Amino acid sequence: MPSFGRTLSEIPPSPLVTVDRLLRAGAHAEPVPLQQGKTVFEPCARPGTWERAEFGIAAHEHAPPAGVPALRSAFADAASRRRGTAVDPGQVLVTSGATHAIAVTLHAILSPGDEVLILSPQWLFATGLVWAAGGTPREVPVFLELSEDPGFDFIAAIERAVGPRTRAIYFNNPNNPTGFRLDERALGALAELAARHDLWLIADNAYENYDFSDGGFLDTATVPGAAERTFSVHSCSKTYAMPGARVGHLISPPGAEEILTKWSLHTLYSVSTAAQYTAFRALATPADELARRRARAEQAWQLADAALEIPHTRVAGGLYTFLGLGRYGDGAEFVRRCAEAGVGLAPGQVFGGHCDGWARLCFTAAPEEAVADAIGRINKIYWEGGLDR
Amino acid sequence: MPSFGRTLSEIPPSPLVTVDRLLRAGAHAEPVPLQQGKTVFEPCARPGTWERAEFGIAAHEHAPPAGVPALRSAFADAASRRRGTAVDPGQVLVTSGATHAIAVTLHAILSPGDEVLILSPQWLFATGLVWAAGGTPREVPVFLELSEDPGFDFIAAIERAVGPRTRAIYFNNPNNPTGFRLDERALGALAELAARHDLWLIADNAYENYDFSDGGFLDTATVPGAAERTFSVHSCSKTYAMPGARVGHLISPPGAEEILTKWSLHTLYSVSTAAQYTAFRALATPADELARRRARAEQAWQLADAALEIPHTRVAGGLYTFLGLGRYGDGAEFVRRCAEAGVGLAPGQVFGGHCDGWARLCFTAAPEEAVADAIGRINKIYWEGGLDR
Repeated sequence: MPSFGRTLSEIPPSPLVTVDRLLRAGAHAEPVPLQQGKTVFEPCARPGTWERAEFGIAAHEHAPPAGVPALRSAFADAASRRRGTAVDPGQVLVTSGATHAIAVTLHAILSPGDEVLILSPQWLFATGLVWAAGGTPREVPVFLELSEDPGFDFIAAIERAVGPRTRAIYFNNPNNPTGFRLDERALGALAELAARHDLWLIADNAYENYDFSDGGFLDTATVPGAAERTFSVHSCSKTYAMPGARVGHLISPPGAEEILTKWSLHTLYSVSTAAQYTAFRALATPADELARRRARAEQAWQLADAALEIPHTRVAGGLYTFLGLGRYGDGAEFVRRCAEAGVGLAPGQVFGGHCDGWARLCFTAAPEEAVADAIGRINKIYWEGGLDR
Repeated sequence: MPSFGRTLSEIPPSPLVTVDRLLRAGAHAEPVPLQQGKTVFEPCARPGTWERAEFGIAAHEHAPPAGVPALRSAFADAASRRRGTAVDPGQVLVTSGATHAIAVTLHAILSPGDEVLILSPQWLFATGLVWAAGGTPREVPVFLELSEDPGFDFIAAIERAVGPRTRAIYFNNPNNPTGFRLDERALGALAELAARHDLWLIADNAYENYDFSDGGFLDTATVPGAAERTFSVHSCSKTYAMPGARVGHLISPPGAEEILTKWSLHTLYSVSTAAQYTAFRALATPADELARRRARAEQAWQLADAALEIPHTRVAGGLYTFLGLGRYGDGAEFVRRCAEAGVGLAPGQVFGGHCDGWARLCFTAAPEEAVADAIGRINKIYWEGGLDR
């Protein structure tokens, strides 16, 4: 057969496949999959049928490329309330999950060889998305440093990484995998830096419902100077516990609609109409139900924090803590042993090139008792490792 | 705000928007939208709920990037029966419609600046997909020539267009918009040419259920020498009358699975689980129901053929005929006048740079009587145009 052009050899096929295989091969009948990013919550909406009038379109009809108007309006209304300033439905692109929102953004802003700074450690597909869009990702380690020392000058670290080809800064706030949260002052400094170098900001808000801080979720676009340069990425996957729907959305500065819609159209024409309807219904979830889920996730964090005998990052938001395995030594071996003992963890290196000595634990991926039991087992492996090596 | 990288300025925002606007602005309360590519048939399956065991996954769970195993197997089984040779589920990638299947293929095979030959006229998004993947599309006019003269040496025409950067040939068979069908001999010659120049073939089979010829639908991959270089693109949109589901699939030569899955993952992670289940159910549509739809579409073609007083292509398959407006003169003006009279047609130039004097009519986009009435109206405009211009 003829040859391929770009084989994405920079990207591992699927970073968590090894963990899955080890878990299945292990002796445990019911392994605890804390390597996954998920919650045990019921989905806020399920697929179903509807009357055409309710959504303005029937399920078998394809939606307009930018999204079903009723859903774009609903997302715009929610954003207007959150931001305290009007967001026009024209600024909203309905996407096939946050992954697609980020892919569309990167394709639109990058020319081949352009660079994207990724505040690291980061969501495990972020670097791959930059490669796939023809760009070059540059990880800028900041979150572990900030977790260790809130006074760490992360702006200086980013500033040093900015080069002539830098086009954007991607970050995930609250951060996956560390649970660190950039606050208003930090985001303000980031927006200033972006303005100084005329960079885009790509704010990945996948964990917006799981910000445990007193201030609650902070929309980067509300920070002074940020709105005109921020692509805000939102996902239904974590907020409404429905990753299978594959619905997210992108909110962009005014004036970007035509370009972004073209990129989206030329990836998949439009997002599944029925999936858009499921998201539309999920948007009607009462605020107190979402608050209840946030409180349950925070409680899961507190239980994990109290039970863990392994150094780990302090969580201000999100569904994860990052385990520091420096004392144990080989992080990959720790992950392997935990999998053999029926506990899935995600190996640190998939979140950043400097994270070999770390592993990610999702404290909401199983019921409380199962997480507690799993933590007991990995504590034991941790202490044993310190002795028999 | 910062600037964009690639704005896809090569691609018009949405080629049919003008027709839609004219139709809505027109005096007719119920315009007949024959510019669209669709049927009046009921969808073969609708969104719904299911027991986890039936599909191996729940609706709220995200599917594996290559697709839900049960659906990949079902598509592989169907392909094995169609081809008369075993297709492994590993060769099947579930995609978000044919658009996404073609986008993934093009991204995987092209390096920036590579060329794709497009047998023209063509599906209206084909050239845009090549631009979006970083390639350069080259239209090779063949279908109008073949419609006029079956002896036209289309292979020589393609051969002349092959250059050092040519990587692939894209074609849609039966062809949208002309209704022409490349037969076994033609496809054999095409596969030989592709082998001679080591090119990929991208066979877009969107209209596989609407091949009216005695031989019926011809899967390019069954032609000698084609399987090892053919990406077969399939869609549920036309076959099962459910474009809103956005489910298609790609069948590739063995050995391409990892690369293609990576590209798909880095566009949208995976296809909506519920949409995949809807496709899974649609696959159970009885063969005689699909045959009945094919017969109804063929009858719609025959009625249109008999009623049209405008020169038009002879249809061997698909849902369209291409109207030759040479005598009328300005094709765009004809489309505009028809829209004002409440009949939507798609202007020829969106299907190929050489098609200004043409317009596409979809004979299945409205009930028989409505199509007949619409054809009466456009015949009148056609004859008037010949006089008052």
